[in-house]
Amino acid sequence: MKKAASIKDLFLVKIKALYDIESELIKALPKMAKKATNPELKKGLEDHLKETKNQAGRLEQIFASLGLKPQKTKVEAIRGLTKDAAWVMQNVQPGPALDANLIAAGQHVEHFEMAGYGTAIEWAKLLGLQNAESLLEETLSEEKAADEKLNELAISGINSQALPVEE
Amino acid sequence: MKKAASIKDLFLVKIKALYDIESELIKALPKMAKKATNPELKKGLEDHLKETKNQAGRLEQIFASLGLKPQKTKVEAIRGLTKDAAWVMQNVQPGPALDANLIAAGQHVEHFEMAGYGTAIEWAKLLGLQNAESLLEETLSEEKAADEKLNELAISGINSQALPVEE
Repeated sequence: MKKAASIKDLFLVKIKALYDIESELIKALPKMAKKATNPELKKGLEDHLKETKNQAGRLEQIFASLGLKPQKTKVEAIRGLTKDAAWVMQNVQPGPALDANLIAAGQHVEHFEMAGYGTAIEWAKLLGLQNAESLLEETLSEEKAADEKLNELAISGINSQALPVEE
Repeated sequence: MKKAASIKDLFLVKIKALYDIESELIKALPKMAKKATNPELKKGLEDHLKETKNQAGRLEQIFASLGLKPQKTKVEAIRGLTKDAAWVMQNVQPGPALDANLIAAGQHVEHFEMAGYGTAIEWAKLLGLQNAESLLEETLSEEKAADEKLNELAISGINSQALPVEE
């Protein structure tokens, strides 16, 4: 394979990576929603699944605008993140403790995606790809909102319900 | 294994996870610094290696304050992140293009750590572990500063140097 040598090459790799990430999340989010006990958290994860499908659709639009078919680059990090979430679902008691950890896992994923989209936006700007840039900005706003929503849920009481009983 | 059922259990798992993450980074950062071309980026990565060693030391202090020996929980996500960084180092041309991508990889790691430390701080607060909380806050500030420094380097010209030549 020829080595990527320009921001344009890197931008393409990044778009393929983001497409892989969204595809992995479309598989992982229903499992997380199923394990959530708090109804708001459950609904939040289900809503984010719908958003995630739209986000994958926006990446498909970007591929089309570049005259390309959607492609994926295998991202080990998102597989690691979903493996860690699976570990948590197996090793933490369902209820407030698991909910608190599902929130934490969700925030890890949101921060990871925010970094990825932030870089892609920076590169789209340098390349003058305005259409791609605005599609990526839309997704970045949704990821930030999802992170804030998770934060509110954490502060609103899920975490304090998981406080240890007297030991 | 008994399932983790309280914030206290989760906090312990999180501290062990953070300790694993810092240990993995102590191995990965020198490789990234070696591959960087821009001298400021190289120095930034080398400086962050020193910070990372201090951060591992702070976690050791937290373990000690809880009467525990330092322990690790295997975190798949950090292994995924460092594998992706290794892919990039193999597939991107050294010089501005690789530097731009090393910055992006570094920012992914910083965001990942910020999410982890953010959660740990929230849990330390709930548990009333003030000493742990302030040690974790120190590290969180360093991670934020490292992320901003990478951002400045990206904006300062590394990215634009990697713009494609006429095609």
